[in-house]
Amino acid sequence: MSPTDRLAAFIVQTDRTVIPAHVMHEAKRTLINVLAVALATSEDPSVDTLDVWGGTKGMASVIGRGSASEGQAALVNGYLAHLQDYDDTHFPTVLHPSAPTWPAVLAAAERTGASGAETLAAFAIGCEVACRVALSVHPWHYDAGWHITGTVGGFGAAAGTARLLGLDVADTTQALGVAGTHAAGVREAFGTNGKALHAGHAASNGLRAASLVSMGFSGPKAILEGRRGFWAVLSPGGHNGAPIEGLDDLIASGVRWELQNNGLKPYANGVVSHPLQDAVIELRNKHAIVAGDVRAIEARVHPLVLELMDRPQPETGLSAKFSHQHCAAAALIDGAGHEAQFHDDRARDPQIAAVRALVHATPDAALGEDEVHVTIRMADGRALATHVEHATGSPENPMSDAHLEAKYRALATPVLGERDAEALLRAAWTLDQAPDIRALMALASRRTDG
Amino acid sequence: MSPTDRLAAFIVQTDRTVIPAHVMHEAKRTLINVLAVALATSEDPSVDTLDVWGGTKGMASVIGRGSASEGQAALVNGYLAHLQDYDDTHFPTVLHPSAPTWPAVLAAAERTGASGAETLAAFAIGCEVACRVALSVHPWHYDAGWHITGTVGGFGAAAGTARLLGLDVADTTQALGVAGTHAAGVREAFGTNGKALHAGHAASNGLRAASLVSMGFSGPKAILEGRRGFWAVLSPGGHNGAPIEGLDDLIASGVRWELQNNGLKPYANGVVSHPLQDAVIELRNKHAIVAGDVRAIEARVHPLVLELMDRPQPETGLSAKFSHQHCAAAALIDGAGHEAQFHDDRARDPQIAAVRALVHATPDAALGEDEVHVTIRMADGRALATHVEHATGSPENPMSDAHLEAKYRALATPVLGERDAEALLRAAWTLDQAPDIRALMALASRRTDG
Repeated sequence: MSPTDRLAAFIVQTDRTVIPAHVMHEAKRTLINVLAVALATSEDPSVDTLDVWGGTKGMASVIGRGSASEGQAALVNGYLAHLQDYDDTHFPTVLHPSAPTWPAVLAAAERTGASGAETLAAFAIGCEVACRVALSVHPWHYDAGWHITGTVGGFGAAAGTARLLGLDVADTTQALGVAGTHAAGVREAFGTNGKALHAGHAASNGLRAASLVSMGFSGPKAILEGRRGFWAVLSPGGHNGAPIEGLDDLIASGVRWELQNNGLKPYANGVVSHPLQDAVIELRNKHAIVAGDVRAIEARVHPLVLELMDRPQPETGLSAKFSHQHCAAAALIDGAGHEAQFHDDRARDPQIAAVRALVHATPDAALGEDEVHVTIRMADGRALATHVEHATGSPENPMSDAHLEAKYRALATPVLGERDAEALLRAAWTLDQAPDIRALMALASRRTDG
Repeated sequence: MSPTDRLAAFIVQTDRTVIPAHVMHEAKRTLINVLAVALATSEDPSVDTLDVWGGTKGMASVIGRGSASEGQAALVNGYLAHLQDYDDTHFPTVLHPSAPTWPAVLAAAERTGASGAETLAAFAIGCEVACRVALSVHPWHYDAGWHITGTVGGFGAAAGTARLLGLDVADTTQALGVAGTHAAGVREAFGTNGKALHAGHAASNGLRAASLVSMGFSGPKAILEGRRGFWAVLSPGGHNGAPIEGLDDLIASGVRWELQNNGLKPYANGVVSHPLQDAVIELRNKHAIVAGDVRAIEARVHPLVLELMDRPQPETGLSAKFSHQHCAAAALIDGAGHEAQFHDDRARDPQIAAVRALVHATPDAALGEDEVHVTIRMADGRALATHVEHATGSPENPMSDAHLEAKYRALATPVLGERDAEALLRAAWTLDQAPDIRALMALASRRTDG
């Protein structure tokens, strides 16, 4: 069987019951994370430009923003999910699988009236496909300058949609083909709105591809391995079929699903300072530390922290996201590192500036990238120390459900209000019991017709 | 000035009056050609799938099909323009510039109410940008497997839109950036509906990019030359900045615009048999030949004709498009090679099959690809001979306006009826005098509100 056919067979033939319960739980967690970050960005002015451009209202829900045509809903939801770079990350490849895959799955599930359990399964399968395709071109593809979320994401979106639309294997192959030939996104767009639009394009592209093929549209049948296909054209430096072949083992012996290698970000800032924030929050909560009683925050860190995030007194919220001093200070004062800790007024806040001045980090190349040693020296002479071996959100130390809920509430409650935010959270945790996803999407999109 | 900045300056600063009259005339001709081929494909069933998917009605005209949202209109119009492979070709690069560029320009002109002359100028400039970017990556990019119409087409669409929306140079740079980072389309999709969708995607992508940036959306500023930009990622085999730098000469000294290297196809079939069809039609018309009086059609052809198009008795319309025997027979009987000559029932027609059997071609490597010698031997003993040095539609032998009108009528009249088809043709020929393009688009889209 060709690699593309193998993917299509996996998408169509995988019985939902072989997906382990902990993978279905992880699928719910990614949904809660997507809802949280998308709600938090749903009032960003740049999203208005997408709405103005995309035009008319329609049948598919836009998170935080009502409804639109299916294509526009997938585009905007993918954009929202990735805009703050606060979505999930497939650690082996740096693919962000949820931002392209979930919006397509949600739009298709709204159209078909799929059950909550089927919706979760379609996401788990779509995510697996996207991650496996990403692994098949790793590391050449990203190193060559491609934004892997934009390019590979369309395969995940097409796979999840094909599953929900009930395409057969032959049509699923062509759906992957139409999506794959529209793969797009170069890293030159990093730092601009264009980057998040890659995720929206991938979501919309994959949804469109499977929808068109379901109605008789034709696409290439060998998009991965074809002579002028995805591997040859977008990863000429090399590719590796093993991750696709490995799908046989996944079903036969239940090896690790790629969702288990997918981490949720606990902090809305550069990832290398996450262990430092973990350590400061742990000590703060354990010892009920008040910022005014602290004399120094001393950290031994991986050298990348100083290389990438050494900004003692950042002047804007955006630069504060790349200041380990600011991240540690916000962690001490607020016990968090959400978007609210990186507003411009927090960067200029005298209290936080005073704490930033107390942060002293020294590099230690013997440490892992997700490791840190921290000592907080108190005015009363105490030295409170801790060691974080693996930062929260890494595959070795996944964010707990409670931590995810705290992140969700910090991002969603200001937008939805407490009552609707809690109702949406319950709807997501119980999605596998729901007859369909309409009630969840009505809450998420702030529509009054739910 | 960087190459991307140079393009943006050209788009924004070129005074319409420096565009030579013959280039504006050529722009009209490409519009008539786009209208003709798009009308002819507007009832293809695959277009219904795009409509079903794209959803709701809106403000922008779809050729032959009413209206849709701007994005959907650009997508469908680009698809229609390329679906039969009967659109124009930029000979130096095999880019099809009109299918991605015209739909974006038309949608933007409908929105802004631009004059007909401004609309033509925006197309001429967008087309120049697309062709120059294509030249900058030729031949590496296409050889690597990219469908250059899908990838480079978005630059033309963004350029034309940016011009009509009145973006400044800095925003135009970013519009090119947002379009360029969403460039897509691999040659693996050839032979499927996916190929024409590349053109639709490029049109919609470029329109969206310039529209978003006009409202404050940000994009990369160095999409061509950036370290992770279009040249580095989509043409790593090489690139050439000279075609972009050459824009200075274009304005200063009025050298040849790329529209003058853009050919309109006279026949809806493989290009290598076009000289053969020219010759047969010339002899047929000159000597009033009736098929029943012909004993043999003897041709000396470029070897590619036999390599690519030797199918003595094709059984389907699609394979007839790649049969030089069928093309010559249809030319003799009908004096044409439009879509109607390639329907399945014509492939199976006994009369045409009998004439196909009379066609005898011999290869001659000394001939040019667009050259042929033909002798038609008649039952009465006459031998009627001609030599075509450059086939119709090549830059050396452009299709005449009369020939273009015949093509237009063959394709458009069955869809629009004679009265509206003629009215639309007049509207296109006089577009430079029109206050805006609304009347033209109302006719083209078969809306009753025009």
